[in-house]
Amino acid sequence: MQKFDCTFSSATVEYFFDYSVEYLFAQYSERKIILLTDANVFAAHPSIFLNRPTIVIEAGEQHKNQATVDKIIEELLRLETDRNTLLVGIGGGVVTDIAGYVAGIYMRGIDVGFVPTTILAMVDASIGGKNGIDVGVYKNMIGLIRQPKFLCYDLALLQTLPNAEWINGFAEIIKHACIKSEPMFRHLVAQQLSDFQNNHQLLSDLILQNAQIKNVVVQNDEFEKGDRKLLNFGHTLGHAIENELQLPHGHAISVGMMVASRLSAKQNGFAGVADIEKVLKQYGLTVAANYDKIKAMEVLRMDKKRIGDKINFILLSYIGEAYIEPISFEHIEQAI
Amino acid sequence: MQKFDCTFSSATVEYFFDYSVEYLFAQYSERKIILLTDANVFAAHPSIFLNRPTIVIEAGEQHKNQATVDKIIEELLRLETDRNTLLVGIGGGVVTDIAGYVAGIYMRGIDVGFVPTTILAMVDASIGGKNGIDVGVYKNMIGLIRQPKFLCYDLALLQTLPNAEWINGFAEIIKHACIKSEPMFRHLVAQQLSDFQNNHQLLSDLILQNAQIKNVVVQNDEFEKGDRKLLNFGHTLGHAIENELQLPHGHAISVGMMVASRLSAKQNGFAGVADIEKVLKQYGLTVAANYDKIKAMEVLRMDKKRIGDKINFILLSYIGEAYIEPISFEHIEQAI
Repeated sequence: MQKFDCTFSSATVEYFFDYSVEYLFAQYSERKIILLTDANVFAAHPSIFLNRPTIVIEAGEQHKNQATVDKIIEELLRLETDRNTLLVGIGGGVVTDIAGYVAGIYMRGIDVGFVPTTILAMVDASIGGKNGIDVGVYKNMIGLIRQPKFLCYDLALLQTLPNAEWINGFAEIIKHACIKSEPMFRHLVAQQLSDFQNNHQLLSDLILQNAQIKNVVVQNDEFEKGDRKLLNFGHTLGHAIENELQLPHGHAISVGMMVASRLSAKQNGFAGVADIEKVLKQYGLTVAANYDKIKAMEVLRMDKKRIGDKINFILLSYIGEAYIEPISFEHIEQAI
Repeated sequence: MQKFDCTFSSATVEYFFDYSVEYLFAQYSERKIILLTDANVFAAHPSIFLNRPTIVIEAGEQHKNQATVDKIIEELLRLETDRNTLLVGIGGGVVTDIAGYVAGIYMRGIDVGFVPTTILAMVDASIGGKNGIDVGVYKNMIGLIRQPKFLCYDLALLQTLPNAEWINGFAEIIKHACIKSEPMFRHLVAQQLSDFQNNHQLLSDLILQNAQIKNVVVQNDEFEKGDRKLLNFGHTLGHAIENELQLPHGHAISVGMMVASRLSAKQNGFAGVADIEKVLKQYGLTVAANYDKIKAMEVLRMDKKRIGDKINFILLSYIGEAYIEPISFEHIEQAI
């Protein structure tokens, strides 16, 4: 167990790492707490929600939209949520994204905390304060950057996580290795997914290391003027195909990382394309997908990273080192 | 004309005071600008919108809701709005509230500027960064505190303002006098509405003075931990009856100010009830309304200022001096 604070330019986030969610509730016993979760997490961990006011949303990225936000707000009103209420999002990235967003706009902002229940949410989605919802095929088109009050990592919650969700989360871990840590990349090459699933310490170390990589990036650039953009490696094309193909996020960005790697090879002679393909496959991720190129280009044109007729693409110079290069839509069209 | 900057804890707002809106457009000629206005302002000032991408919403508080936000977002997507686009809200408080809110959540925040076209928006609604929408009868239940990039006061726009809207705006001016400036209260007592309507300098001085009163309050307490709450004088009950009775905002808070004044007399012997009633009437405002007390209490129970079984009420000790007192729902019920 480790407890530490992480101070961003706008706020300080309290980390409860490897603590039980019950410990967390005890810490906030004097506050009115409302829990927000999805149907899967609610069914998998009934004891957490017993006798606690809970809003349950439908599971899945397709529900990360305004209709779900409307329902949550209606429930918050019904539960007489006031400015001193603490909203706690317990779930994967969809739940923490929606919980963070709703808490940011309800009564112009109430406190929110996250209990991520997936690898993906633990190493990426729940960290850094970005929240939001999709608008049609456009991912995270609406949202805020606003830090939660705390993050609680209860690794016991991963025991019920389906294998497909483990694979999904490792895409972001591989991404962190690609852009920030060559030693972690080698560590991943040397292990198998099952090693992490069966060894608490190995897993705990990996998750903490990944949370710290993301924390440092966000601390240096909370409002994404520079370095934080590197975290979008694989995400530009990934987002463009995720909703169209109904691909899990990890697989979509895995395809996106392959495209960005090949684009890197073309732009600067990056030599690690085969290594990245190998490790993605090793962890069960998709490296190619059959998608509608015209539709993907349409979505890219509405990407938040677009500046005029170019889009900021994240490329690699070598494994562990990424940079931003504006690429014209024409060049992207050729690459995909 | 006066140009000054106003620095809040989170951002600096540029003020163009007594400048034409055309001057403003010239200042931002290098930016992609999208205008947001309502049907009334669009019809009253066609030359402003000629050949400029404009989103026109329906006029009126009843459209300050999620349905309107959905339509605006759809239009922003259609207009290929990117992160570098500047959204300019031109209108009364409903338009500036919605423009500020949409700009705050679209792509996690794009720049926004306001051109208030009503007295109420010039002295109150457009200042201080509070934005938002209503949820059913609950006013501003959803929103943000986020400063605009600039405010442009083009007093020529007031020439087409209906008389009812002048009256509406003077409610907030009288409120500022009640809580912060006894000399301004005396000034208002000595004048008539028509004096301000017919004398540019008299009006310009009054608007600037009111904008400054609000600026100073917000500068000292942007996130409403203390002094900013005083601006809610008359608003607690005002908001509770505004949507129920479909009363204009100024008349609703005028009724609210009367209730708060009488409550002040009861709690601390405040002696100015008759003076306040006189000046409200002098400027054409409603001082009593027949509303459903049970419904009003229901709405009060969901007020953002509620803490447990009490609500923070703004009371006056004397004219020009206000303070906060938590009042139980029981006492409010007796008072109304």
